[in-house]
Amino acid sequence: MSDNRDIPSKVIKNDPWFGSYADRAEAMRASEIRALFAVASRPEVVSLAGGMPYLDRMPFDELAPLLAKMLKDKGDVAWQYGSAQGDPHLREDVLQIMELENITDAQPDDVVIVNGSQSGLDLITRIMCNPGDSILAEAPNYVGALGVFQSFQVQVVNVLLDENGLIPEAFEQAIIEQRALGHPVKFLYTVPNFHNPAGATMSIERRPKVLEIARKYHVLIVEDNPYGLLSFEGKTYPALRSMDSENVVYLSSFSKIIAPGMRVAWMVAPPGIRHKLVLANESAILCPSNMSQMTITTYLDNFDWKAQINDYRGMYKERCDTMDAALKKYLPYCSWHKPKGGFYIWLKIPEGLDSRAMLPRAITAKVAYVAGTAFYDNGEGTDHMRLSFCYPTPTRITEGIRRLSTVIDADRETAELFGTTGKPDPDPRDVEYPGPAAH
Amino acid sequence: MSDNRDIPSKVIKNDPWFGSYADRAEAMRASEIRALFAVASRPEVVSLAGGMPYLDRMPFDELAPLLAKMLKDKGDVAWQYGSAQGDPHLREDVLQIMELENITDAQPDDVVIVNGSQSGLDLITRIMCNPGDSILAEAPNYVGALGVFQSFQVQVVNVLLDENGLIPEAFEQAIIEQRALGHPVKFLYTVPNFHNPAGATMSIERRPKVLEIARKYHVLIVEDNPYGLLSFEGKTYPALRSMDSENVVYLSSFSKIIAPGMRVAWMVAPPGIRHKLVLANESAILCPSNMSQMTITTYLDNFDWKAQINDYRGMYKERCDTMDAALKKYLPYCSWHKPKGGFYIWLKIPEGLDSRAMLPRAITAKVAYVAGTAFYDNGEGTDHMRLSFCYPTPTRITEGIRRLSTVIDADRETAELFGTTGKPDPDPRDVEYPGPAAH
Repeated sequence: MSDNRDIPSKVIKNDPWFGSYADRAEAMRASEIRALFAVASRPEVVSLAGGMPYLDRMPFDELAPLLAKMLKDKGDVAWQYGSAQGDPHLREDVLQIMELENITDAQPDDVVIVNGSQSGLDLITRIMCNPGDSILAEAPNYVGALGVFQSFQVQVVNVLLDENGLIPEAFEQAIIEQRALGHPVKFLYTVPNFHNPAGATMSIERRPKVLEIARKYHVLIVEDNPYGLLSFEGKTYPALRSMDSENVVYLSSFSKIIAPGMRVAWMVAPPGIRHKLVLANESAILCPSNMSQMTITTYLDNFDWKAQINDYRGMYKERCDTMDAALKKYLPYCSWHKPKGGFYIWLKIPEGLDSRAMLPRAITAKVAYVAGTAFYDNGEGTDHMRLSFCYPTPTRITEGIRRLSTVIDADRETAELFGTTGKPDPDPRDVEYPGPAAH
Repeated sequence: MSDNRDIPSKVIKNDPWFGSYADRAEAMRASEIRALFAVASRPEVVSLAGGMPYLDRMPFDELAPLLAKMLKDKGDVAWQYGSAQGDPHLREDVLQIMELENITDAQPDDVVIVNGSQSGLDLITRIMCNPGDSILAEAPNYVGALGVFQSFQVQVVNVLLDENGLIPEAFEQAIIEQRALGHPVKFLYTVPNFHNPAGATMSIERRPKVLEIARKYHVLIVEDNPYGLLSFEGKTYPALRSMDSENVVYLSSFSKIIAPGMRVAWMVAPPGIRHKLVLANESAILCPSNMSQMTITTYLDNFDWKAQINDYRGMYKERCDTMDAALKKYLPYCSWHKPKGGFYIWLKIPEGLDSRAMLPRAITAKVAYVAGTAFYDNGEGTDHMRLSFCYPTPTRITEGIRRLSTVIDADRETAELFGTTGKPDPDPRDVEYPGPAAH
């Protein structure tokens, strides 16, 4: 595998185009997650870092001949340019998926197919935000969204979140404060279900309150919902979009419920915004891949995808239970809320420890996680780490937590003796690494 | 097929979010090409409008089982997240393709896989250009690039082009003028081979001159080269990138030489720029689709792709010859340069006629083209139209030109009698249409 680490950073520092870049390029840095990948993907390391779904249970053997048939029958369509809004067949299909979250009034014309949720976040920020505009977002924040907001030079205003999700009063307060400062608030970005990284879920009671505040202040809500169907309770929460079609742009993805390799996600937006999203999609990528979209529809049309999602739910629940039990056994002095679905536990480590500084020691102990600092743009988060239970098997999860406990135990002892655990390493994002960009 | 035309435009005009959008969203409009699609794609209409490659000769039957095998053997990789820089295997493969254009010094690490050329243009503009910055570009200009430049609020400065491509003296003059005005010139955007829409090719003699000027003024060149291998003369032109690795960002695509449905293109850039392109790619789309990339590598690894490209060249040459002969027969009073490759003839119509105003009459006569105005952002181009010969069969091309001649003949008579051909229709971009976005 080819690897950028061979390019010494001074080559890039002697860049003859230094000084020629756009202002927005200065704000672009590799996410801490990607920076971690090269080490975290070594087989001897238990990676609790990435957000890669576990695909071993996908029916590739049964799907293969169906995909071959699709190519034989419709290769001239699958390999041709498509519509900028997305394949009409797929736009019909996603309506069925959204029905599971109570979205029953959407039409295929309300849907825009996008090149993964990342592109959806890029497009909505692109059409809504001038440099310097504010958006509100739960803190900690999804790292991929932070990257988009930074690249569009948007001010991210953190809104408090607890185990019941976004706190409505904090949301209202943040709007009032931003308006008082004269900052246009373009939208609230929220991950209401099984938040990445916080694991929190917005309670049923809070949802109408959040919508009411949004309407009161005419603030758009961007509802990012890749995990909504991966509940461990058998209960699926109603989407914010199911309660309000005028003030919510809904974004979901096949990446976690089927697979991320096709880069297919979708948005549902009110007509004016939807119109601009299609134009922005055309400007950004011309059109989504027909081949990718028809791979997804081939899967949806021929398999019991609801049963598959249910199987995933069971698998991820088992892994979450395993991690929760291992944390209770090995790290009882840390604190966390057990999530009701999704991929992540947001672990608070003891006072005085620094999750980013600790990371090289964890890698040495053959376990990887993402330091909490990745999920803030202001240096906060040293007291947390994100542990993902989606990809490693239960046995590996337990072993990973055991290894992590040796590192945290040692750092805790050092901190008790010296009041500090030593200097943090250089920002891992200053080094380039290749590798899967699962966030 | 679902269709946006059912949404009355007043719904969008009563948009409750009107006034909330970013400034850049105001500049986003559907390209005239996409606006045309809904009518141009009716089977009774001979479409000389789109840039869709002709895929009937692709070996789908032979490819289908190989794709099935790929999914069985490597589904867990194909369906997983990938690297933000792109699949290392594919980055190796594109080196072989670029060797055909004399690029022999590129390494896999210099390559970034992007989601189609459109995304490549988006990324380079994103990292280089602040709002108000200037870029230089051949006029007429590729419509997809114009859309990107507009969406980043970039000033597009037109540089003259003749049948031997960009005029070096005009390039230098434009740099001097922009600098005198205090406008930062971020790059020259050029399509050196078989230009879309002009059909022109930069002569061998001009290439080093253009590079010399770029170096003299430290102006980056963005070389967009989707058609370079589709020469009708058996001769492939050396890429600008083959003569200068420091000042050229090279962009090419599989869309025209294999197929566009995977949305796979690639860029080669000097290290500093390449580093930022990877970060921008991650921010825009997280990572290119593994499934798409592995579909391409499955094709490249198992078929004689050089023979396939050669077959395409012969097919497109025949279609170009057919169109040229039909133009000589039916429209001898128009003028054009027969292109040496690619997909397009840029037709100059008689003085006083307006290609955009004429379009509804052409559609009535069951032939479609793209009005020259699509390729300028300043209203120029009414005296030209782009005729594409890539997709219709030779018989249909001849019939299409015959139909077109009846429309031009009639408009010419009207113009001779009344001095005008009547009022132009509303801008077709003010109406929404769905459909393939082939530019």
